[in-house]
Order: sequence, then structure tokens, then C-alpha cells
Amino acid sequence: MKIDGRAQRTIWVESDGWSVGIIDQTRLPHRFVTATLRNAEDAARAIAGMQVRGAPLIGVTAAYGLCLAMRDDASDASLANASARIAAARPTAVNLKWALERMARVLGPCGIAERPARAYREAAAIAEEDVAINEAIGRHGLALIQTAAAKRAGGPVNILTHCNAGWLATVDWGTATAPIYLAHDRGIPVHVWVDETRPRNQGAALTAWELGRHGVPHTVIADNTGGHLMQRGLVDLCLVGTDRATAAGDVANKIGTYLKALAAFDNGVPFYVAAPSPSIDWSIASGADIPIEERAGSEVSEIAGRDAAGNIVTVALTPPGTAVANYAFDVTPARLVTALVTERGVAPATRAGLAAMFPDRVKDSSFTRPERSPHVEPVET
Amino acid sequence: MKIDGRAQRTIWVESDGWSVGIIDQTRLPHRFVTATLRNAEDAARAIAGMQVRGAPLIGVTAAYGLCLAMRDDASDASLANASARIAAARPTAVNLKWALERMARVLGPCGIAERPARAYREAAAIAEEDVAINEAIGRHGLALIQTAAAKRAGGPVNILTHCNAGWLATVDWGTATAPIYLAHDRGIPVHVWVDETRPRNQGAALTAWELGRHGVPHTVIADNTGGHLMQRGLVDLCLVGTDRATAAGDVANKIGTYLKALAAFDNGVPFYVAAPSPSIDWSIASGADIPIEERAGSEVSEIAGRDAAGNIVTVALTPPGTAVANYAFDVTPARLVTALVTERGVAPATRAGLAAMFPDRVKDSSFTRPERSPHVEPVET
Repeated sequence: MKIDGRAQRTIWVESDGWSVGIIDQTRLPHRFVTATLRNAEDAARAIAGMQVRGAPLIGVTAAYGLCLAMRDDASDASLANASARIAAARPTAVNLKWALERMARVLGPCGIAERPARAYREAAAIAEEDVAINEAIGRHGLALIQTAAAKRAGGPVNILTHCNAGWLATVDWGTATAPIYLAHDRGIPVHVWVDETRPRNQGAALTAWELGRHGVPHTVIADNTGGHLMQRGLVDLCLVGTDRATAAGDVANKIGTYLKALAAFDNGVPFYVAAPSPSIDWSIASGADIPIEERAGSEVSEIAGRDAAGNIVTVALTPPGTAVANYAFDVTPARLVTALVTERGVAPATRAGLAAMFPDRVKDSSFTRPERSPHVEPVET
Repeated sequence: MKIDGRAQRTIWVESDGWSVGIIDQTRLPHRFVTATLRNAEDAARAIAGMQVRGAPLIGVTAAYGLCLAMRDDASDASLANASARIAAARPTAVNLKWALERMARVLGPCGIAERPARAYREAAAIAEEDVAINEAIGRHGLALIQTAAAKRAGGPVNILTHCNAGWLATVDWGTATAPIYLAHDRGIPVHVWVDETRPRNQGAALTAWELGRHGVPHTVIADNTGGHLMQRGLVDLCLVGTDRATAAGDVANKIGTYLKALAAFDNGVPFYVAAPSPSIDWSIASGADIPIEERAGSEVSEIAGRDAAGNIVTVALTPPGTAVANYAFDVTPARLVTALVTERGVAPATRAGLAAMFPDRVKDSSFTRPERSPHVEPVET
């Protein structure tokens, strides 16, 4: 995507040929600041501290973290240590584990001397694949927006999204935003309801920022608002990302996604999840098996914003000493998901639907538990 | 309730015998500040600016606003003008209209000379009735908490609430909080999940503050969190207030209530609404007929909090110029409400259930539309 006319990605190798540049996303939307990662610990900290976030971008950052580790020390021990450190940075997004395992598969058989260069090649490949995957998701999702546009007869298609599954959550394009950018660029009128996305406000801070930079019409709303909008017929479709989908179509995403899926189901609004294949965990069927990260309570009890003088100030929102809980994700059961938009096409959120789309992936897995609890009716698309 | 051991209500006649004291709720939880209303315009502004808020307290403030108007000018024109001005302050809470109509019924037949004193007597009666109603809601709701406690076998009963239907939303006790305070005072272990309640954060700012002052264990969570907690079995019951319930049990309450009701329904968690009879609008059956207030976008795009030096600072959360929408309420359909907790008892959220509890009220009304759309199955308790 472009910022002020200049092409920009979220992660890149600096001109020194080895250090890794990122956008410090904790400073947006108030400041556009980049940072440089120089070792694996920098990468782990950037992931844990959410300077980079979004499942696809976390995966790519993890891969580059291993590049930096290999540059410092290309031994097996270094590879194992750096992988373990980075893997522990955040638990929910499966892309982290996926990228580290892919790097280990490539680097393991490599001679020590070749490892640094091989690592950078593989990390670059993962980054380029992410861009290609998102472009493909954009094309498949575009058809869904076109269908909604046909019903709107000229009026804008109202799309509700939660959190940031945008350009900033990936290397480029975004997952949930790729169809939106593509539709907008092709002249299909779209309008995005942007959930504020407490805590951390990735919607108000990041999605609003990137949609605004690209000129896509959007309106920020409190997370509480989506249900009311759907009751009033003001949402044509929901489109969100995922940090980990199961082989049966359950979807972990930013906390609160489940509530929007319930409202969509209750009001007959399609609920689509943009799911690049690296975000699909073929090893599990039930969302209950996805680890849900708990983060610091200060992310709820405090918030940073711009004061009247333009300074970034952190203020407390709760009475001093108030207990706070901060679950970062929830799981939306497949029965509430209309379909997953993958790079290969739009798949029903069922084991059969995903297996038909990814026969080469699913065959490697075995499931020890039933796909669904017996009382749940799958929603076929 | 008590603050630091001293009995305190949310609204009172000052020692001068006529001006009206309130707690400026826009300053909580950071400052405890009172303000004085000296004329009807002060009252209207306090309601519109949410220095006082909560349906019952809005009603009482409206009544005292008419007292102040009568003191300045007890003519029919003054009564009509002040009523119209105050009625326009906020559209959703029916208590406002209810209190103004009750005052007009009493003051209309009165001689001009008697009106000021009669107004103060009636406003005081409304305030005392509010306290009595909430105490009664507390007793009826206590039984629901006792039932949940029996299942918990000694562990705390986890109650999720949204917004502030507390002591601060009424003259005293609160509606949704009355059963909680009563249970806590009787030694039943309770723990309250307090929704932050964006925008305006009445949960994080007001409910957390008043529960903390009373010593009730509680945890503040982002509004996005309740669904996940219910999926994990961490909520025994939901208990919220209402700004206007219909004669058929649809419930308008702070935006986002509907999403929690959907999650409760999906997870088999009882969803109770504390509904004092002045919050029930017997003239309508469908929640779609309740006007939903839209407020300033700055309530979403900006937030006030305490900085490190203890100053209250307002900061911006969105990119400059971002479009924002701010719907203050949503409507939860009766099919998702387990029961209404009224001052007369626990009533099923159906027209028949409410009519059986309030035969003296409902007989005055006629309905021109069907109670429910045909595809909806009522949830009987």
C-alpha cells in the first residue's frame, strides 16, 4: 500500500542488507515511526509488545527473527533457542508456530555456513507469499462484495470489521481489507464500520488510519454498536480476520468477534472470515483447543491518546486499584461463520469444506475428537 | 449508600430548602464533585450533559427541574415550557416523560400560589418511591442470586453487568445493583464482571467506583469480553438495567446490551433485566418504536482519564478527522430476556407476564401491532 504516495510495507530488510525495519504500530495513529530489529530478542520483544501484530505479520517477523539469530550464531543450539524464545512471545496466532517450523525445516538440513543466507531467502519467500495470498483473498472476497453491491443497487456496501486484519496486520494488502481495497479501487462504493476494538483499539487506531490513508470511506463505532446497526439493516456483511482457524472452521480472533458473529447470525447478515492458509491449524478441530492469551490489565485500565498539544499521553480510566481482566481473543464457533475466504477460494466453515479446498494440507492431520458437539447445526453456505 | 461512612444520595434538596444538589457524574471516578441546580435550564443541561444519568435518576431530576421552574414562575406557560425543555434533553429513557407527566397531573389542578410547594412535595415523593422500588427489586433479585449461589456451592456467584444501573443511576440502591448489594450485605459471595461500557465508560468509571466503595468484589473487562467469559462458564447470570422496556418485554438499554443478551442465550446463561415500573412504557409493545438517541461523536473519538500527575486530561483516540457514529442505546428483544425483575416480583419478558404483574397499568393501554413477529419463540422462565 502507499503512504502519502510512497509504497510501504510493514516489514522489510534495511539497506544494510540484514537488519529488519518495522512500523512501530504502538505509536499509530498519532505518530508514524519505524523501528529496527537487530537480533532475535528484538523480534521477540516487538511481537510480545505488539509493535508488530496481526497473525500474518507475526509469522513473517518470527521468520526474520530467526534470520537475525542465524546471523549472530548459526548453530543448532542458537536456532533452537531463538525459536523457543520467539514462539513464547504470543500464544494464539498459529502463524508464529507455522513460520518457525517452516524455517526450521529449511535450516535444519543446511550447513552452518549457509544458514544465514538461506534464512533470509526463506523469510523473504514467506513475506512474498503473504502478499500473494492476500491478493488472492482480495480477488475471492471481491466477488462477495460484488454480490452485496448488486443488492444495494448503487448505494455503498456497508461492511463491518473488527480489530485490524488490514494492511498493517500483514506484509501488504491485509486479509479482511484486501477485498475492500480491491472493491474500492474498482469503483464499487464501499463503506466500512470500524469497530474501535477495545482494548488496544486496533480498529480506531490502525484500521481507521489505513483506510483513511487509502481513501476508503469508513466510520468508527464503539464495539457495542454493531448489533444495533445489524438490527437496523445498516450492515450488508461482516468481514474479519483470524489468528487461528481450526480444521473444522472454528475461528479465534480478537476478543469480541464472537459477539459480532452472534449478532450477524441473529440478523441474517453474512459473516465472513478472511483466513490465509497459514492461519489454519490443521492439527485441531475444536476452537476450545486454541490457547487464549491473557495480557496485562493495564491495557484495559489505561489508554494512550493525543492531548490538545499533540503529545501522546497515557491516562487511567478506572478507579485506582481496580481489578481488571484482559483476554485478547475469543473463539467464534464454525456454526456462526458463513464462510472462510482463503487464497484458494471461499470455503464453507466446515471440516468438509476446508478439506475440499486444501486436500494437500488436511491429509497430514488426524483428529482425535468429534468435529462438532452433537447439538450444533452446521451453517452451510 | 455510603461514601466513606457517610450516607449519600445522588440528588437532594440543599439546606437552602430549594436548590437541588447532584453528584457531577462526568467527573467520576477521578473526582467526587457535587453541583447545584438553580433553575429548569440547569436541570435540562445536567440531564443532556449526563452529569446525572440513569433512567430513574433522570426522572427524579426532571421532577426537581419543574420544582425550580415553578419557584421562578408558577404559570401554566412556565410549566409547559419547562416540561418541553426538559423532555427534549434526552429521548430514550421513558422515566423522563413519566415524571414530567406525573408532575403535570399534580400541578395542573393546583392554584398557582400552591404550585411551588406542591411540586417539591411530589418530586420528593418520586425520589422516595424510587428508593422503595429499588429496595423491592433488590429483594426479588436476591432470590435469583441465591438460586445461583446454591449451584455454586460456596464459590462466588459471577454476575455480569453492563453500563451503570447502580446506585448512581437512581436515587439510592440502584436497579441492577440492588440485588447485588443485598446479597453482598447478607454474606452471599458475589463477584461482578463490570463491562467497561464504551463510549462514556459508565462501567469502568461509575459501576467500578460504586462497587468498590461498597466493598463488592468486581473485575473490569472490555465490552468485547463477556461472550468469551460465558463460553468458559465464568458467568452465572447477567443483570442489567433498562432505560425503557415495552409492555411486551423488549428492553432498551445502553448500547451493547443486545450483544450480551445474545451471548447469554447462546450459552444458556440467565439474562435478567431490572425494570422498575416507571421504566416500562405501557404505550408500546415493540422495541422498534423506542427512539434511540445519537450523541456527539467526540464521546467515541476522545476520552478523559487521569494522567500520571492526577490531572483529568482528554485525549483523542482516532486519526484527526475520522468519521464517528455514536448510538447510545440498543434494543434487546424480549425473546432473549429471561425475566424482568420489577418491584412487584420477577416477571417473564412477555406481554402476558408483565400484564399479570401490573394489571392496573396495562389495562390503560391498547396495542395496534402484534406483540412479536411470528418467527420468534418466546423464552418462558
